[in-house]
Amino acid sequence: MKQSMMFIPTLREIPADAEVKSHQLMLRAGFIRQNTSGVYSYLPLAHKVLKKIEQIVREEMNQAGASELLMPALQQAELWQESGRWYSYGPELMRLKDRHNRDFALGATHEEMITSLVRDEVKSYKRLPLALYQIQTKFRDEKRPRFGVLRGREFIMKDAYSFHSTNESLDEGYTKMFEAYQNVFSRCGLNFRAVIADSGAMGGTDTHEFMVLSEIGEDTIAYSDSSQYAANVEMAPVIAEYEKSNVAENELEKIVTPNQRTIEEISSFLNVSKETCVKSILFKVDEKFVLVLARGDHEINDIKVKNLFSASVVELATADETKEVLNCVPGYVGPINIPNEIEVVADQAVSVIINGVCGANEENHHYKGVNLDRDAKVSQYADLRFIQEGDVSPDGKGLIQFAKGIEVGHVFKLGTRYSEAMNATFLDENGRAQPMIMGCYGIGVSRTLAAIIEQHNDENGIVWPENIAPFTIHIIPVNVKNDSQRELAENLYHELNTKGYEVLLDDRQERVGVKFADSDLIGLPVRITVGKKADEGIVEVKLRKSGESFEVNLNDLTEKLTQILGL
Amino acid sequence: MKQSMMFIPTLREIPADAEVKSHQLMLRAGFIRQNTSGVYSYLPLAHKVLKKIEQIVREEMNQAGASELLMPALQQAELWQESGRWYSYGPELMRLKDRHNRDFALGATHEEMITSLVRDEVKSYKRLPLALYQIQTKFRDEKRPRFGVLRGREFIMKDAYSFHSTNESLDEGYTKMFEAYQNVFSRCGLNFRAVIADSGAMGGTDTHEFMVLSEIGEDTIAYSDSSQYAANVEMAPVIAEYEKSNVAENELEKIVTPNQRTIEEISSFLNVSKETCVKSILFKVDEKFVLVLARGDHEINDIKVKNLFSASVVELATADETKEVLNCVPGYVGPINIPNEIEVVADQAVSVIINGVCGANEENHHYKGVNLDRDAKVSQYADLRFIQEGDVSPDGKGLIQFAKGIEVGHVFKLGTRYSEAMNATFLDENGRAQPMIMGCYGIGVSRTLAAIIEQHNDENGIVWPENIAPFTIHIIPVNVKNDSQRELAENLYHELNTKGYEVLLDDRQERVGVKFADSDLIGLPVRITVGKKADEGIVEVKLRKSGESFEVNLNDLTEKLTQILGL
Repeated sequence: MKQSMMFIPTLREIPADAEVKSHQLMLRAGFIRQNTSGVYSYLPLAHKVLKKIEQIVREEMNQAGASELLMPALQQAELWQESGRWYSYGPELMRLKDRHNRDFALGATHEEMITSLVRDEVKSYKRLPLALYQIQTKFRDEKRPRFGVLRGREFIMKDAYSFHSTNESLDEGYTKMFEAYQNVFSRCGLNFRAVIADSGAMGGTDTHEFMVLSEIGEDTIAYSDSSQYAANVEMAPVIAEYEKSNVAENELEKIVTPNQRTIEEISSFLNVSKETCVKSILFKVDEKFVLVLARGDHEINDIKVKNLFSASVVELATADETKEVLNCVPGYVGPINIPNEIEVVADQAVSVIINGVCGANEENHHYKGVNLDRDAKVSQYADLRFIQEGDVSPDGKGLIQFAKGIEVGHVFKLGTRYSEAMNATFLDENGRAQPMIMGCYGIGVSRTLAAIIEQHNDENGIVWPENIAPFTIHIIPVNVKNDSQRELAENLYHELNTKGYEVLLDDRQERVGVKFADSDLIGLPVRITVGKKADEGIVEVKLRKSGESFEVNLNDLTEKLTQILGL
Repeated sequence: MKQSMMFIPTLREIPADAEVKSHQLMLRAGFIRQNTSGVYSYLPLAHKVLKKIEQIVREEMNQAGASELLMPALQQAELWQESGRWYSYGPELMRLKDRHNRDFALGATHEEMITSLVRDEVKSYKRLPLALYQIQTKFRDEKRPRFGVLRGREFIMKDAYSFHSTNESLDEGYTKMFEAYQNVFSRCGLNFRAVIADSGAMGGTDTHEFMVLSEIGEDTIAYSDSSQYAANVEMAPVIAEYEKSNVAENELEKIVTPNQRTIEEISSFLNVSKETCVKSILFKVDEKFVLVLARGDHEINDIKVKNLFSASVVELATADETKEVLNCVPGYVGPINIPNEIEVVADQAVSVIINGVCGANEENHHYKGVNLDRDAKVSQYADLRFIQEGDVSPDGKGLIQFAKGIEVGHVFKLGTRYSEAMNATFLDENGRAQPMIMGCYGIGVSRTLAAIIEQHNDENGIVWPENIAPFTIHIIPVNVKNDSQRELAENLYHELNTKGYEVLLDDRQERVGVKFADSDLIGLPVRITVGKKADEGIVEVKLRKSGESFEVNLNDLTEKLTQILGL
């Protein structure tokens, strides 16, 4: 493509309202323009990259046995009412009325639509499993759109859905999709982790998020420094084993600790390690109060508390509730001498504390010499804390480290959440109607575009990985008014195009400084500069990534490009 | 692709609510399903064809020098208010509010969006011309969605826009697009005409519609039987030349013609030819009354009347107005002895009528022996009638015939309609701000899919043209439980896939009759049946279009397929 005919409005300045690197670069390199908050036009360069990402997704989905279709964005409200999400989705779901005053949702996701479609056509186990996907514009009215296309209100998503007659078949389908996702993100040149995630309110079981490692990510990932293990930090189990030392037990002693509320304060006040302190937090687990204990240097993970009790809701007790139940202000709560109806559970690390310190359920007082087996009634020791950096990885391999991640994909075992609500059943081998077992699998295509840029840039602009770059070669004649430079550049352009390279020719009448700056911003892997030595048949080749540059005789150019780019 | 893994829900019965062939076949062959009125899911087979059409469109657009981008479907109301279309578009424009109660339109078309985008980035004539296009889902809340995806409320469109600094540049761009459109529809295997169309209220100049010839079309095309000429019937000029015979003029005579109002009645009553009768119709042209004359066998074309007077509105005068102005009921109106303030204009054919018949402006009375030069005051003779079948083609080549057409594309010289309303200006070579001159160019991608099927089917199903078919080869093992048949079919499937053919393998455990019926419905160009002679290495090849079938030895199959399909 000739640059004069393409719409690439580059900017010299960093736009004031763009906080993160990818957003800044997409604006500056002429990839996107905002139309309104969270709504963007993808200009030709961005569009070319989107198509490449889509093609990779398509190849991997087809390879995984899924078929592509296209469902409508306009979805009648009745479908969402059947699943119940019309009422639960909130203002993120964009809604409108047609000319007949009928309610519609703009597709934020398509579980209802696909369930309805498959329910109407598939009646027998013989037609299962079935996997379908689409690549489509989705609409979600985000409360706080930000970071450019990383969190927009209109975005491109690949959503896939699978239907199964058995859980084993779902497991197989899930594994195929999982592998396809790994391939997609690897081929996009991303440094990512498949992270065990919370199945949340969806009622599913297995679920993984695909996270691109980035300091601007909104999620924290706990990963092993020596294996593939990675999990959302909320989900990582702690497998540490604790051993009790054989120090002699002291007597329990109540002490005055004026204004020493936090673990920090009390450990410092008493000059003991945090590991010796017992953190005691009162939770409301569904309708029941539970006192949860953890070691002073650990944080309680309420998802683990919730799972321990198979509860629906776990909340911290309020100060008023604490006062009412324990007759104590928060900060001095402890497990000793509390009402029988309050269950006490503790993280495993607490079980080995000898002569510990805990609140005395009395303002400005603590106990020391606490030995829980003797002094309190702990109903259960379990894994109840957040994993920490330095903990042993849950797979036993290496130590845990933390990283931030941008979620670009999600695979999810839905189970029968939708098929039961919407009565999507099949007849099994015995002729009995059963709800279909479903999986759903999403990739944020436009978000992936931004994530790639977030990971591939330097101070001068974007640095495209080869197989996702909008073009691979940028030809720059230094002076287009010089006939031999212009002609050589044009000839090279046609020759390399014919060879199958994707070439952008900067045929604009601009100063060469402007062209180089734009070229660095746009970030194509290889730049060929046609300058004064054009007459001698010599051009300069520069690699965007390494910055390495060298002169090449035209006779050797093809061979050189083959070495660099293949083909 | 293996058929068992693809979602192709075929139907035996013709769905009751599908009126036209393409709609019936798309439902029966498992290409689409309706979600709600005018809103469809494109199932995998349809999706594959859509992608092929899109690829053809893309190649031809790129060839024409346009760059692809993607603009949002969500468009803030302010843009549409700037152009004025927020108020004029009516209920076809779908509207919604976001969570902050701001108004949005769902993109029905993108003139406003692209004008705003280019206005903000292009400031100089040096950056023009510029041509941009997108392939995108559009939304129009049609009053009467019908014929399946031929007239839907959510549909796929390619819309292109070009920006120019001069009218000559617009002409060039328009010509390139015109040629690209001819290529697109030819490559889609369509029998179509590029038809001169009415530029209507858009204020543009040149405009062509691309019409697929079909009896279900809503527009009438006047085309030459011996040239490429074609026009919307409303737009075709009449170039007939009329010669006056040298019959002697009779005297004007008022005669009584009780209840003879129509041309049919009066010509029969007087036993004269319709060609001798003068049809006289009173029009209201803007605020002025004009009497328009045509030969009895011709129809007056009000667009031509409108153009003759450069008027904004042309309407038939009401009976009340006719009474008021001519003191006469319609049916007896004529050009003789009418008030001076009423201008009389006539179609050219009227100029040669000798001894004609016309209304006498008196109920139940006509004149005969009418010779207008002598008896009336005609201010102008001009081309004011509709062209008819049998007329000479306006390009002088051949005779006109009529056909019905489905509009699949439209190229349009917009001029400065949007750039002036939205202040999209550039600085010309003299540094003066000028409005950009625009063109717009649309293709109904999903409608094209239906139009192809409308033209390519027989009583058994769809008959795909090769380069647009979802797959080119359908392999059918007669009995998948027979090991040698199944294995041969599978081997063939892999071999032909590897060779680059697109192959659908019917691996379902169905009766062969069901498979053949489905295969005919789906309509792939070549069917390979693997039956009893599998062991002998013999298969049957059947061509969908001709119905021709023959046995082929496996050793000769590749050569045979190359003959049929190329590759």
